[in-house]
Amino acid sequence: MTHHPEAASDSGERYTVGVDFGTLSGRAVITRVRDGEILGEAVHAYEHGVMDRILTAGDSRPLASDVALQVPDDYRQVLRRAVPEAIVRSGVAPRDIVGIGIDVTSATVIFTDDDGLPMCETTRFRNEPHAYAKLWKHHAAQDQAHRIVALAEQRGEPWLARYGGDLSSELLLPKALETLEKAPAVYARATRIVDAVDWITWQLTGRLSYAAGDSGYKRMYQDGRYPAPEFLAALHPDFGTVFTAKMPAPVLPLGARAGGLSAAASAWTGLPEGIAVASGNIDAHVHAASVNAVRPGQLTGILGTSTCWVLPAAEYRDVPGIFGAVDGGIVAGAWGYEAGQSAVGDMFDWFTSTAVPQRYLDEAESADMHVNDYLMSLTEAQGVGESGLIALDWFNGNRSILIDSDLSGLVVGQTLRTSAPEVFRALVEATAFGARTIIDNFEAHGVPITDVTVAGGLVQSAMIMQLYADALNRPLGVARVLQAGAHGSAIHAAVAAGSYPDIAAAASAMGRVRADAYRPDPARAAQYDRLYAHYRELYRLFGTGTTVMHQLRDISREAAARRTRHQE
Amino acid sequence: MTHHPEAASDSGERYTVGVDFGTLSGRAVITRVRDGEILGEAVHAYEHGVMDRILTAGDSRPLASDVALQVPDDYRQVLRRAVPEAIVRSGVAPRDIVGIGIDVTSATVIFTDDDGLPMCETTRFRNEPHAYAKLWKHHAAQDQAHRIVALAEQRGEPWLARYGGDLSSELLLPKALETLEKAPAVYARATRIVDAVDWITWQLTGRLSYAAGDSGYKRMYQDGRYPAPEFLAALHPDFGTVFTAKMPAPVLPLGARAGGLSAAASAWTGLPEGIAVASGNIDAHVHAASVNAVRPGQLTGILGTSTCWVLPAAEYRDVPGIFGAVDGGIVAGAWGYEAGQSAVGDMFDWFTSTAVPQRYLDEAESADMHVNDYLMSLTEAQGVGESGLIALDWFNGNRSILIDSDLSGLVVGQTLRTSAPEVFRALVEATAFGARTIIDNFEAHGVPITDVTVAGGLVQSAMIMQLYADALNRPLGVARVLQAGAHGSAIHAAVAAGSYPDIAAAASAMGRVRADAYRPDPARAAQYDRLYAHYRELYRLFGTGTTVMHQLRDISREAAARRTRHQE
Repeated sequence: MTHHPEAASDSGERYTVGVDFGTLSGRAVITRVRDGEILGEAVHAYEHGVMDRILTAGDSRPLASDVALQVPDDYRQVLRRAVPEAIVRSGVAPRDIVGIGIDVTSATVIFTDDDGLPMCETTRFRNEPHAYAKLWKHHAAQDQAHRIVALAEQRGEPWLARYGGDLSSELLLPKALETLEKAPAVYARATRIVDAVDWITWQLTGRLSYAAGDSGYKRMYQDGRYPAPEFLAALHPDFGTVFTAKMPAPVLPLGARAGGLSAAASAWTGLPEGIAVASGNIDAHVHAASVNAVRPGQLTGILGTSTCWVLPAAEYRDVPGIFGAVDGGIVAGAWGYEAGQSAVGDMFDWFTSTAVPQRYLDEAESADMHVNDYLMSLTEAQGVGESGLIALDWFNGNRSILIDSDLSGLVVGQTLRTSAPEVFRALVEATAFGARTIIDNFEAHGVPITDVTVAGGLVQSAMIMQLYADALNRPLGVARVLQAGAHGSAIHAAVAAGSYPDIAAAASAMGRVRADAYRPDPARAAQYDRLYAHYRELYRLFGTGTTVMHQLRDISREAAARRTRHQE
Repeated sequence: MTHHPEAASDSGERYTVGVDFGTLSGRAVITRVRDGEILGEAVHAYEHGVMDRILTAGDSRPLASDVALQVPDDYRQVLRRAVPEAIVRSGVAPRDIVGIGIDVTSATVIFTDDDGLPMCETTRFRNEPHAYAKLWKHHAAQDQAHRIVALAEQRGEPWLARYGGDLSSELLLPKALETLEKAPAVYARATRIVDAVDWITWQLTGRLSYAAGDSGYKRMYQDGRYPAPEFLAALHPDFGTVFTAKMPAPVLPLGARAGGLSAAASAWTGLPEGIAVASGNIDAHVHAASVNAVRPGQLTGILGTSTCWVLPAAEYRDVPGIFGAVDGGIVAGAWGYEAGQSAVGDMFDWFTSTAVPQRYLDEAESADMHVNDYLMSLTEAQGVGESGLIALDWFNGNRSILIDSDLSGLVVGQTLRTSAPEVFRALVEATAFGARTIIDNFEAHGVPITDVTVAGGLVQSAMIMQLYADALNRPLGVARVLQAGAHGSAIHAAVAAGSYPDIAAAASAMGRVRADAYRPDPARAAQYDRLYAHYRELYRLFGTGTTVMHQLRDISREAAARRTRHQE
């Protein structure tokens, strides 16, 4: 990240650009092909951020509560701003840059014309919410998702098992069906439907293709085909052709060269025209390359507000409760599994803002520590289980392995001596146990895990990471690069540019990981084994044994509805 | 409480004194016999408070963690200070005062000689912890309590059912056995063993007798007899005579005249020599007289740090999970039942000091509201169950109806939108549901409840009381006197003085209660019925269905022991 004037010489060094498009901003990194070193980076925040209350890019009309939209041109601005700035900061000569790769929040859906012009950029639809990019967390297509699953179950569609037997409303298909049903004019006028990852690649190359990973996880592309037209037509008469008419472009494997950089994109970015543009990635999945964990059995966790687990596997097995299983979904030549925990960092933030007395916050500030670390430090002397607490980490439902968004949190074991730091640690332990449940579930269904590597913001907490190693009873590798998404995209770009034969070779050379950074303490691991058994008991009890969490959710919804009616 | 000079005239008005001996102080009130009006009161704090870390009254030796002792002379100081001060404040002429009654924390055990001199006041034993008053919350006799229960079960002792099938370590018998085993010299030297209530009465009259209520609940006096000598001797060879040799005085019914005020006590208090001294009461039980709820079916709750429920009943029924059932235990001529909730105000205080962000505390102060009320006010607009939360109020175990001190707390239903006030309200609801469980348990076992009256510090919160009325689905009567204990003792004194024929007549005239102060809202009560069903499900699940709370407690104890060993 410092200035390296020598790197701009004719040293023979080559570089790639990785660009990570997040929920609120995009980040570009300039990476050395030889060893993966990052030489410069820059961030550009989206002008419109997430539109989830009013349509700020249009006529400011109010939006429903489960709507979350973005403005596609904000992504172009990242290419125009962050990429040139990162190049300048790196001190690298643009002529030495041989490729660019991108990764994007997954299943952010855009409706365009034949040339990739988003519908929201037409005069006719600039005030039409359905013409904007439907962000991954746009949850207004829940009804469509339910109907798609119900029909797939009824027809025994074989691809349903690839998604753990259920589909999220975040996927492309429910969002597209929502547009057809709610804004048929947009649907009719749009000749192409793309996820943002493919739209940005299209912007870079001038040619539309679809990336294999995203296509499998988010566009239902399995075994070389999409869901059948007759299935789709049964959902809506005009939906039968959604793939054939509106998504006719080829699906390219990860690491492939999607095209050469177009003249227009060269002008935006300052990169040489014609350099390799890699097939795009889902942001979480590309972390696996950054931490060199792309071989079968190498599980990577991206621990942030939520946690995403990705796992290449040599063979396919039906694994219940996963988010998706895709051939070539993480790396070409292996099955890629994805599983998730819905609330991790989000839950810790909830706790510190909702349930922590001021003195801890003041003391953390005095000690110049993140409040998470400070709270953890206060229980560091305590033995495993000494607080007598166990929690369930379902504050935003349980994604894997129960796939039940109506589950909720639980803390048990409080006494009049229980402290706030003890409750915090119990929540951290709950997320570690949730991870262990996912690991156990993979192994119980014949998908072996040889090692575990973690990336994401939470790896900055050494105390939380040591707790994970103890509670998982496994050594943990840890990403050396905090922004491992953009870094992983730069690794994919190096393969697309031909610098390495495949992702595995590129990741071996360019991946940056502290292998076995945390090793389990045998005594504490043994005690966590015992505590984990009780976590599993509560997991079974509240996950499947009693319906009390669902009943409470029903009561809550009815009470809120009664109050709303009463106030109207 | 204001000065009433006319009351000191020869108006024919008569007055009594009630003195309530609490855990940290004693309070005297001067009460008008005609109508129960309180004319003056005064408080005196115990010089030594509770000795639970070091023996401050002796050589300051350290005390074990479960030890809690008091200095009997601190009680005498209340008679010397608070009573005269209350008389002065009332403006009442001492000659118009016709009686005195007292109530004391129950099962505070004192070892004395034949004249009532506590062993700790002898030179030999002034540094011996076992020679001091063992306060109700002295918990070092747990082992003895377990052995007494085990033997009683083995022998099929019929009195065990009167205590819900279990005995607290707080009772006199375990504490006396502990002294015999741990400090045999004190036990041998002491010729009398008394509860503080009887020791203070003895100090007032110069003559030892035992009060019926305390004798039944705390000294195992049932059906006119104590546990048999052969039973006691089986616990320890020297214990067979504990009642016959060391507690040979008569047991007097409640409302009886225990004697006339002695010359010494007259000098301490400034009260006329020879006036009636009433048979003493357990502090919680005497509230029933203050709120005029002494007839069968009238349940009184004393809501403070914990909650004590007392209920006179026309007939005896075996009721599992009660704390005690005693003929004449609350009022002569009726069976008196006691049940309890171990953590109520304590749990609310735990929450506000452990789990509430500063802004709520600041806002409560700005609004000049108690933080409990402020937190409640923030959820007032919410419907019943809208938070989606349910809690179990077992932060200090469950006294009634499970009699299980190793149970612990639980909160279920949290989401990332859950707020601190919502959790607080869930804890309040849990205590209300805990109360409802106790009520249901009485009725399910043939002990009817006609009405419910509440007293104690928590009745000051109108929002909590309305929630109780809704959650119990019953109207609530509320004490008008905040210090209803001392007031109740003054009512008993009026009976002992012959001003009324019995407690019921005295309570009718002198009791002060707002009948039906809170009435259930039918709609909210119906919704609470539904929520209560889920509370009951969790109650059964964690009370008897799974042992996870016990397992967590075991793990916690073992972890703490391991750490202590490690640190040594």
